[in-house]
Amino acid sequence: MSEISNLPNSKKIILKTRPNGDPVVSDFDIIEEIAKAPDDGEVLVEVQALEIGAWIRTTLNETAFHGSTPIDGTIPALGNGKVIISKSDKFKEGDIVTGPLMAQSYTTMPADFFTKVTNPEIDPFTQIGVLGVTTGLTAYFGIYDVGQVKEDEIVLVSGAAGGVGALVCQLAKLKGAKVIGIAGGREKCDVLINEVGVDGTIDYKSEDIDKKIKEFAPEGIDIFFDNVGGEILDFALDNLRDRARVVICGAISQYSHHDKVDGPSLYLRLAEKYARMEGFTVMHFEEHYEKASKELLDLHNQGKLKVPFHIEEGIDNFPLALQKLFTGGNTGKLMVKV
Amino acid sequence: MSEISNLPNSKKIILKTRPNGDPVVSDFDIIEEIAKAPDDGEVLVEVQALEIGAWIRTTLNETAFHGSTPIDGTIPALGNGKVIISKSDKFKEGDIVTGPLMAQSYTTMPADFFTKVTNPEIDPFTQIGVLGVTTGLTAYFGIYDVGQVKEDEIVLVSGAAGGVGALVCQLAKLKGAKVIGIAGGREKCDVLINEVGVDGTIDYKSEDIDKKIKEFAPEGIDIFFDNVGGEILDFALDNLRDRARVVICGAISQYSHHDKVDGPSLYLRLAEKYARMEGFTVMHFEEHYEKASKELLDLHNQGKLKVPFHIEEGIDNFPLALQKLFTGGNTGKLMVKV
Repeated sequence: MSEISNLPNSKKIILKTRPNGDPVVSDFDIIEEIAKAPDDGEVLVEVQALEIGAWIRTTLNETAFHGSTPIDGTIPALGNGKVIISKSDKFKEGDIVTGPLMAQSYTTMPADFFTKVTNPEIDPFTQIGVLGVTTGLTAYFGIYDVGQVKEDEIVLVSGAAGGVGALVCQLAKLKGAKVIGIAGGREKCDVLINEVGVDGTIDYKSEDIDKKIKEFAPEGIDIFFDNVGGEILDFALDNLRDRARVVICGAISQYSHHDKVDGPSLYLRLAEKYARMEGFTVMHFEEHYEKASKELLDLHNQGKLKVPFHIEEGIDNFPLALQKLFTGGNTGKLMVKV
Repeated sequence: MSEISNLPNSKKIILKTRPNGDPVVSDFDIIEEIAKAPDDGEVLVEVQALEIGAWIRTTLNETAFHGSTPIDGTIPALGNGKVIISKSDKFKEGDIVTGPLMAQSYTTMPADFFTKVTNPEIDPFTQIGVLGVTTGLTAYFGIYDVGQVKEDEIVLVSGAAGGVGALVCQLAKLKGAKVIGIAGGREKCDVLINEVGVDGTIDYKSEDIDKKIKEFAPEGIDIFFDNVGGEILDFALDNLRDRARVVICGAISQYSHHDKVDGPSLYLRLAEKYARMEGFTVMHFEEHYEKASKELLDLHNQGKLKVPFHIEEGIDNFPLALQKLFTGGNTGKLMVKV
């Protein structure tokens, strides 16, 4: 019974109302309760850091590919944490684990939901923001396996100042490609040039996207890595080179449209250019996580992966962080320090 | 000068007004004039047969991927004909040639525009409708090279009772795939079952497309070969299996929309399913025409390629034939006997 008397208070973020369009802070509530004692096979984890990803928005609709969050349900989130109580042979107390911790300060779940972090000396934000499933691994499989980037190709990346975007830019550069990043605002574009190291930027808020693409790539682009969708996707389709690949990673501009996503009206350019549009989720590559994680860790250790972070402090600010993702109020990977 | 006195009267179909939506007979005019005498390097060809393809519609807009037809310009068309006068070493009189003859009864053009038909014993409709560039070769590269159809896969084909569609169905069956054809009306569906030999049909005019796809392919389809676009494309995207391929061959439902094509609003399904949408034009495979043509001829000689033909008589009916293509008034490959 000593364990139970030690159970901490936990705050969790729940869904109050389904967002009408982009999510705002008032769609969520914070409730506080004593963490649940783990049953056999479960662990109690102290959440250290959570990533804010656009996929979370998709779960806030009534029907959703990643599963729907019920009203009053805890918001799903991925992150890292430390095992406080283990009722499983898989982890011992003090282990750092990663997985679907949810938007809360303490999590009690089956141990099988989590993976042990094998390099606990690396800070949790780098773990999540550079080496994580929704960041490093997504970028890796997206630009290498789906995009099949090759030397001297021209790669256009939307949402380039976000976590996945910044990593895609760098992974493409490492293969010898020329990289153009699209982002909103001068500040983000400066980060792309000075920190991420792209060859050119397009500020979609103030620049003529089509004209800038044509300036950088008068003969067209070889790869468009899309995190955004909407009109940016059409501009890219209008500037494809023969055999180009459009990698559909996400569509943050479209996730908040309940009824009707704007499909790419220039999709017939794919036929004119013998080009392809291919989507993926990182889960499709699960069997290759280990190998890719090793490569990413090597690159990180060599200082070759620089991801700007935008960290909000405290689980209370999880809703604000999610809101910022959709208003473009972040430069770099959005995370919450819990 | 004897040649000139022998020049025949030629009728040609010209563009009177740009179609507003689907093309109608009144958008065209027929004019008659004496055929032009060939200069050095040119040939005068008596046109035998012309194919009616959806690509022709795209040339009737002011800006067009395949080039725009000017007002009063002759409508482009591909077909077969017999060389009547040759001023080129490439052909001798009596040779059967294939190429961009245009919508007219006699054509004078550089010999280099044409290819000699090496099996003149085969009738011109089979040449065009089964073995032609816009039919057999398009179907061949589309389903084999782009679609990469494999044994036991489920293939859904739109516009299945058209020339390309019917051939795609049969080429996919030859690889051991299960084929479902979408067509408009019971008559076309019966032809698909009884002549083309598909495993199932969906009459988009009277049946619930989504429900029928789910009946035939409860776990989803592996390939969607699309000649149509619009809502049929979205239904297919909503029923993809993991790693599915959507082959964009055409979009007859969209060619008449000047300003805005309806893009596939469910394109994010590509990401959920790690699926791809890939377009092509047959011209991208030009270096492989010879090999593919031989295979198609073999299959034809074995009786394995059955394409229903819809033949309109006389060059005067070229505009009517084009109009029928867009109203669905044809079952099988539309051609004009000139």
